[in-house]
Parts: sequence; C-alpha cells; structure tokens
Amino acid sequence: MKPELVKNAVGRLVPQIINGQKHVPFQGIGQFRPTGRKAAPLIPTCIDYPADGNKIVADLKTALQKCGLHDGMTISTHHHLRDGDLVSNLLFDTIHEMGVKDLVWFPSASFPCNEPLIPYLEDGTINRIEGSMNGPLGRFVTEGKMRGTAVLRSHGGRVQALQDGEVKLDIAVIAAPCSDAFGNANGQSGPSACGVLGYAKTDYLYADKVIIVTDNLVDFPNLPMEIEGNYVDCVVVVDKIGIPEKIVSGTTKITRSPDRLMIAELTAAFLEQSGILHDGCYMQAGAGGTSLAIGYYTHQILKQRGWKTRLGFGGSTQYMVAMLEDGSMEYILDAQAFDLEAVHSIANNPNHHPYPVFNAYNYHSKGNLTSMMDIMILGATEVDVNFNGNVVTHSDGYLLHGIGGWQNCLFAKCTILPIPSFRDRIPVIVDNVTTLCGPGELIDVVITERGIAINPRRTDLLDKLNGSSLPLVDIRDLQIEVERICGGKPERPNFGEHIVAAVKWVDGTVIDVVREVKV
Amino acid sequence: MKPELVKNAVGRLVPQIINGQKHVPFQGIGQFRPTGRKAAPLIPTCIDYPADGNKIVADLKTALQKCGLHDGMTISTHHHLRDGDLVSNLLFDTIHEMGVKDLVWFPSASFPCNEPLIPYLEDGTINRIEGSMNGPLGRFVTEGKMRGTAVLRSHGGRVQALQDGEVKLDIAVIAAPCSDAFGNANGQSGPSACGVLGYAKTDYLYADKVIIVTDNLVDFPNLPMEIEGNYVDCVVVVDKIGIPEKIVSGTTKITRSPDRLMIAELTAAFLEQSGILHDGCYMQAGAGGTSLAIGYYTHQILKQRGWKTRLGFGGSTQYMVAMLEDGSMEYILDAQAFDLEAVHSIANNPNHHPYPVFNAYNYHSKGNLTSMMDIMILGATEVDVNFNGNVVTHSDGYLLHGIGGWQNCLFAKCTILPIPSFRDRIPVIVDNVTTLCGPGELIDVVITERGIAINPRRTDLLDKLNGSSLPLVDIRDLQIEVERICGGKPERPNFGEHIVAAVKWVDGTVIDVVREVKV
Repeated sequence: MKPELVKNAVGRLVPQIINGQKHVPFQGIGQFRPTGRKAAPLIPTCIDYPADGNKIVADLKTALQKCGLHDGMTISTHHHLRDGDLVSNLLFDTIHEMGVKDLVWFPSASFPCNEPLIPYLEDGTINRIEGSMNGPLGRFVTEGKMRGTAVLRSHGGRVQALQDGEVKLDIAVIAAPCSDAFGNANGQSGPSACGVLGYAKTDYLYADKVIIVTDNLVDFPNLPMEIEGNYVDCVVVVDKIGIPEKIVSGTTKITRSPDRLMIAELTAAFLEQSGILHDGCYMQAGAGGTSLAIGYYTHQILKQRGWKTRLGFGGSTQYMVAMLEDGSMEYILDAQAFDLEAVHSIANNPNHHPYPVFNAYNYHSKGNLTSMMDIMILGATEVDVNFNGNVVTHSDGYLLHGIGGWQNCLFAKCTILPIPSFRDRIPVIVDNVTTLCGPGELIDVVITERGIAINPRRTDLLDKLNGSSLPLVDIRDLQIEVERICGGKPERPNFGEHIVAAVKWVDGTVIDVVREVKV
Repeated sequence: MKPELVKNAVGRLVPQIINGQKHVPFQGIGQFRPTGRKAAPLIPTCIDYPADGNKIVADLKTALQKCGLHDGMTISTHHHLRDGDLVSNLLFDTIHEMGVKDLVWFPSASFPCNEPLIPYLEDGTINRIEGSMNGPLGRFVTEGKMRGTAVLRSHGGRVQALQDGEVKLDIAVIAAPCSDAFGNANGQSGPSACGVLGYAKTDYLYADKVIIVTDNLVDFPNLPMEIEGNYVDCVVVVDKIGIPEKIVSGTTKITRSPDRLMIAELTAAFLEQSGILHDGCYMQAGAGGTSLAIGYYTHQILKQRGWKTRLGFGGSTQYMVAMLEDGSMEYILDAQAFDLEAVHSIANNPNHHPYPVFNAYNYHSKGNLTSMMDIMILGATEVDVNFNGNVVTHSDGYLLHGIGGWQNCLFAKCTILPIPSFRDRIPVIVDNVTTLCGPGELIDVVITERGIAINPRRTDLLDKLNGSSLPLVDIRDLQIEVERICGGKPERPNFGEHIVAAVKWVDGTVIDVVREVKV
C-alpha cells in the first residue's frame, strides 16, 4: 500500500502516517504549536528497590527481565562511546538470545560499530531504528531492507519526541564510564571515560525503566550525578563497555587540505570583518577538520584583539580547551567530549561544565541555548541555491549521516556552512537538496574555497560587508562555476517509490523523506 | 457536613475526601502501591520565549499575568530564605492587589515572617495552605479559622504529591539569590545567598509555569543550574528577596543546657558503643542545639578513632563543614545551608554538593537516600510508649511545626530521637501521641536525659548493648518517672470536631488529622 502523501510547507511530499502513527507535515518555521502535556512515565515506589541502594543485578539479561522486556517495546541507547561502544551490540545480542522480537531501537546515534546488528534487522528482532544512522546501517536502510520506516531526528528533536510522548520509551540502556550501585553515573572516569553523558538525560527522565551498564563501579555517592540514580532500575557491571581508542581517538586534528584551510581562513575573516566575532560572544564550532581550523584561526584573532568569547558549546576538543585555559573562552558548556584533552578538562576545569542537549537543543522548551549563539559553524552534504541544507544523504541518495544537533543549531544568530564547493567531483551546491533537512531561511552564509555566499535574506550582512575585501559571491554564480568544474550537475539517483526514512523537524513535524535507492 | 471517617492502619480516624479530593487512608508502611503515571505539565515551545534568552519582565504582577494567574490556582513558594524571606509576602500582596481569589498556597514551608498573610486567609485570597506551618499560621489554622483544610506533607511527600499529580501545580514562584536572564538560578551568591535551593526542583519540573524572583541578576550562563532556565517562564528582578541576617543567622549554636548536653553525650556514647558509628558510615544530624552537640561529640570520636564518615546529608552547618575540612567527612550532600560557613563551603569546597530533597527523600522514586543512612538524628514534640512520634503539634493540640524531612528520614537504618523527657513541665513521653506523624516501628531509639529507651523491635540493638555501661531504660518506666516529676500526664486539649489539617504519610496516604482546638 502506498502511503498518502501531502505537500508540506517546503514543498516536499510527506506521509501523515509513519509506522502506523500519525505525524504532522512541516508547517514552516515557528508555525507548529504543540498542544497537550508532556510524557508521563510510571510512578515507581521505593518498596520495589533495595533499601541499601544496591541495584546491581547479575547481567544484562536479568536486568531486561526485571524491566519486563517484551515484543514491540522501544529501547534506547546512546552514542557517548561513539564508534568504540560495546553496549548496544551486547544489548541486542542479549535480546536476540532471549527471543524477543519487533523492537524499536531508539539510539541517540548509531555508528559503523553497529554493523553487526544488521542480522537482527533482517530477522525481525529489531523492527526499525528511529535515530541517526552513520554508515552501514544507513546503507542497509537506503536499499529498502529495514522492516519499519526509519525516523530521523536531530538531537533536540529526539528530546522533543521523548518529552512530548511522541515516542514512548520503555527501557533506556545507558552505558556509563562510572556508576555507583545506586545508578548515579557520569562520564568522567574509568577505562571508558568519555567526559560527559550529554544525550541520556531525556531518556532517564521519561523512560519507564532505566538500566545502567558500567565497567567501572565506584562507591556511592558518584558525583556529579549526570544520571540521577533515583531514576535507575538496575545496574549491570560488565568487563568492558567500550574500546578507549575509538571513544576518544585523540586524533581529531586540524585539516591539512589547502582548500579546507582556505575555507577556514575565509570563515575567520568573515567573522572578524562582519563584527560577528566580538568580545563576549557565544560560539559553537564542531570537531571536523575545517571546524577545528576555524577554531584555531578564531583563537588567534581573539588573542590579537584581547577579546574573549563568553562561552563555547561543545562537542569539545583540545582547541576549545586551549581557549578555556588561556582565557580566550570563559566557559565551555559541553554535551560531548571529542578527545582526551576535553575529557581531562571536564573532570578538572571548574569552568568546563556538562550541559546536556536536553538543555541546549530542545525546541519544545522554554527557550534554549541555540538561539542565543552568535556564531554557529556547521557542515552539510549539499546546499541548494535557496540555501536549503542537507546533512543526511548524499547526492547519490544514500542515507549515511545523522542529523546530530544540526537542525537545532540553525536557530543561532548567524549560521555559517563552511563547505567545499564540490566533493569527489560532485557539486555540493545544487538546484534542490536531495533531502531537505534545514530550510534556507535559517542558513545565513555558505563559505567555500571559491567565495562566500551570503543568503540574500541577510541584507544586514550584505550591507555591512559591501565594499569589504572578502570574496563575496552569488550562490547561483558559485553553482555555475562548480558545475563547469565538475562537468555538470550531480547525477540523479534511481529512487524507488518506497519511503525508507522520515526526517523530522525540531518541532516534531515531518520536513522530508528518504526514498529507497534501486541498486 | 461532617466528613465520613475511616480508621487507618495506625488506628486513626481520617477522612477520604479532603478539600473535595479523594485521598487514601494510611495502609501501613510499604503497603500502599501507587498506580498510574507521573504528572505531565504543558508542552511549551520556543516560539513563545525570546530568542535572546532574556525573560526579564517588569515586575511580579506582569509575570503572574503572563503565567495566566486566575482564581483557584495552586501557587508554590519555598523556604530557602527561611524567616528572612520577602518573596512569599510580596507574592500574595501582588495577588491580593490583582483581586485574584481562592488560591491554594503550596509552600515548602511557611515561617513566622508569613504572619502578614493571615488577612489573605481571612478574605479568601488564599483558600488554604498545603504545606508546613511554623508558628502564627499554624495557630490560626488550629483555631479553625482557615477556609480550606491544611494538608501537611514531609519534604519528600511534597515531592511525591507534585510528581504523582496529587497536587497539580499551576505556578511555581522561586526566590533565587542569583539568576541569569534565562532563569538559570542557584543559591550560592548575592546579598541573599542561602547556599542551596534544595526544595524547588520538583516544582520547576512539574509546574506549568515557573517564575524566578531575584535580587542578583548575573550574566548567562549562571552555573551550577540548580534551577534549569529551560523550565523558567519569567524572571523578575527586585531590590531585595531576603533579609540576610534571618536567612543564615550564623547563630546556630551548640546547646548550653546541661540536660541537652547530657542527651548529646549519651547519644554519642550510644552511637559508639552500638557500633552504628563506624568508618565510612552515612550520617544526618540536623541543626538544633542538641543535634549540633551530637555532631560535635561524634566528630571527636571520629578523630580519636581515625575514622571518617563517608557522607553527611545537610541541612549543613559549620560543624559539618569542620568535619569536611579536616577529613572526618568525605562528602556533604546538601539540601539546605544553615549558616554562613555552610554557604561558603558549598560555593567553594568541591566535596560539598547540592543534593535536592527530590533526590534524597521521595518515596515514589527508584530508591532514595534516606534508607541508606546509618545514623539519623531527629527531634519530636512527643513520643508515645509504642515509639510513635509527633512533630507537628504539641500536647496542647496546637499545630506549630512542619514535618520537614522527618517522616522521610525515619527510613534510615537507625533512627534516634534525642529529646528531653519533658518540656515546660509537660511530659514528652506520652500514652498516645496527639498527632501520629511516624509509626513506632520506624523509630529505633529514644534518648533522654533520664536514659536510653530502645524500641523492643530492635532486638539486635538490645542484644548488642546488653551489659553495656549505657543507661538503658524501658520507655514505660521512663514515662512513669517523667509523669511523677511533672505531676501527671499532659492535659488533654479541648478538641472540636472540625478537622483543620490532614497529615500525609510519605506515600501520599493520610496517617492522621489535626482537629480544631476550642479556645
């Protein structure tokens, strides 16, 4: 049966029923107003928990049994351990052994390390993934092989969906680098230390049942309580929750590509000349090679000018830590630490604070951090001539990336995409993005090695930089130039009719879909 | 109309309908099992909040209007500023001016400073107080003058009632010693610094609307976020939220009464000889003069033995801070700072952590702190020969105190009441407590200046201390001795039929009532 599709506010055809549940088509930025009340998990009682606070159970299977695991439930995991995570695979190995079927997996993100879960998608242990898919699982989904339809949400959209009861979470399984027997947990110490647990707060607040899996049991009270033990049902101690060198590689390094370095230099120059970089500003960059270079150049400008940024929001890296340490940045608020320097800093620098995506990104909140940010550096797989952005698929139609915080971050005062104008001889500037993840009205500037394209809606920026030495270009001229270099527009993939994934906007509405690619 | 009463599990006659709402009679400790789901506040959206994060409004009236204040709503305040609080009176002055009526005031506690609110109880601005009443308001209620029926809850019971939706909170008004314009707030700095805001967490999580009132606006981000700005609707800046010398008096001092000092010495000796005080134990004492003396004596024992307590739960005082600082205590977990030394310690000692009653005391939680505590020192206005305790009324029937965390703390491994055997020539040991706040099966030891009465249920303690030098007595012998000194049993008050207050147990059931005293 073909689902009935409606055209949403950005002209994309989207279904109103996904996996049997009703969803609202995107209605425009700031147009959809939620009604009703937040999700309400079951009321627990201390009667059911040990008086001595010791919630350790023998193994994950026992924990899942105690939590009443059964067919059709929704189970969440988190990507705090990134590609070094061992817990999500252990979880589904255990569930598979138990013979439970038809689960919804609700990860904050999945990674290439989760490729071994493909057989469980094939055999019906997992009906579908609702969450980011980086790499092999995305490929599997794109080729139409998953039973259910994937639902992609931003980090903030994931918070919104749980909070609003759009996704009813039965069991949250939280891998924790350190935990006490009561379930107070954080990411600061232990062999699998990852710094912060910035993605699990909504899960423990709204799940009916919460399981902590740790390889580093410490004495009560384990502080800070990033995960509050009062919400935890069971603690499982295992040998190893992660592979340290894949959790924090320590190899996140500034790009050496001359083109990327040029993009970074242009971006820093743009920030300086536009006045967007200023004493006391709030900034967020990211951990890609170009972003790190931008961070580095920005740091030099701050030092020259004697300025400091008031705060940086992490994904934190050694480059942000350097700014914090020499006083060029007053605070790091952090949802995720990308390298060992950042992990160390969180545990030791009193101005480096855990700051979950729950507080930074949720659009169904009484304000959030993103709209206060002055400078927002983001990536994209494609941008179109109307400044619409894509971060999940490539021009070949393949779904290979998660949204991350990207959509949430678009609400910053100035959103900049420093991106190459083409990759592997395929233009990045296109007529229409393959998947529309973010509407052009929220994307202010695209900076490529061939010039800076300012969104015509930002007349203030255009006025300000009129006559500057910056290489300003019209995005349509940029497109023509890039197509000449690449020998034309990207080839259109062979899409089938089958919708393999829905892409949510930050308010829970459906902004686009991903269709099957016929191979 | 007389309410229909039923006898509950401790033999007290209680109503099942209070203020028009259904309530469950006490069913015995650990017998009542909650069903259903937690309270669910309205889903907000960033559309309705300023993108720059500035939620400051002109004044409290504007804030209340924005929050949709209307007749019959439930409004909460907190006693972080204790008898120096200026915000709760300002709040009801404002509401009175606005002409709004019939409100339920849901304070974490009221204090003598709230005596000026009596006219608002008389004129119907406030229908009733659900919360602790210390002093004048309690007197007013006892004499049958409040329109609605008071509902008394422990600190943990207050969390439970909000969390379970038993009390639907419309607007939380939180006085904050420091806040940024987004509403991130804590108690650590400013002219009204009170250390921690340990009582407001449930309120901001579950209220539909949240107002911060501060006299110390600081730059974003105000860290730590004891109150998370994402839950805050408006910030109101006023000249003064509190009278510093009444917030933290700095005069909380060890008793000088020879009888009380003797009780304290006996308690310390009991703790040492019973083995309950041990290296690594968890303890909670409190801030009364006797408790402070117990803390002091305990500290000496720890130092002599070379032991340290793993943690102390505050109400913190200079005596606990001294233990923390010389290594006799590893951590202070703190819901309330009682003096300036404690306020300073919280802001500066990394082992002194805010720890809200939300996490410490809620019985409808997946475990809490109280049942893990080894040593629990509490007070009482009366104890009966079955070890039942009263903390809210005196033998004259007057309701003059709140429950505080008392009921919650009874779940500790050893609950000790070090109390004088009589006060003002009225016996404290009675046949039946005037108001039953805590069942005797949870009270382990009563320590008076005339000896130590161990609850016969604690055969382990009796065995252990058999033959010790401690002055062990039977509680009934103690009663006889005290009655001889005082010239008989306390006079029974002239109670009317009218129920002026219901006393809740930690699980939301009704354990007792307070009746009107005819004057």
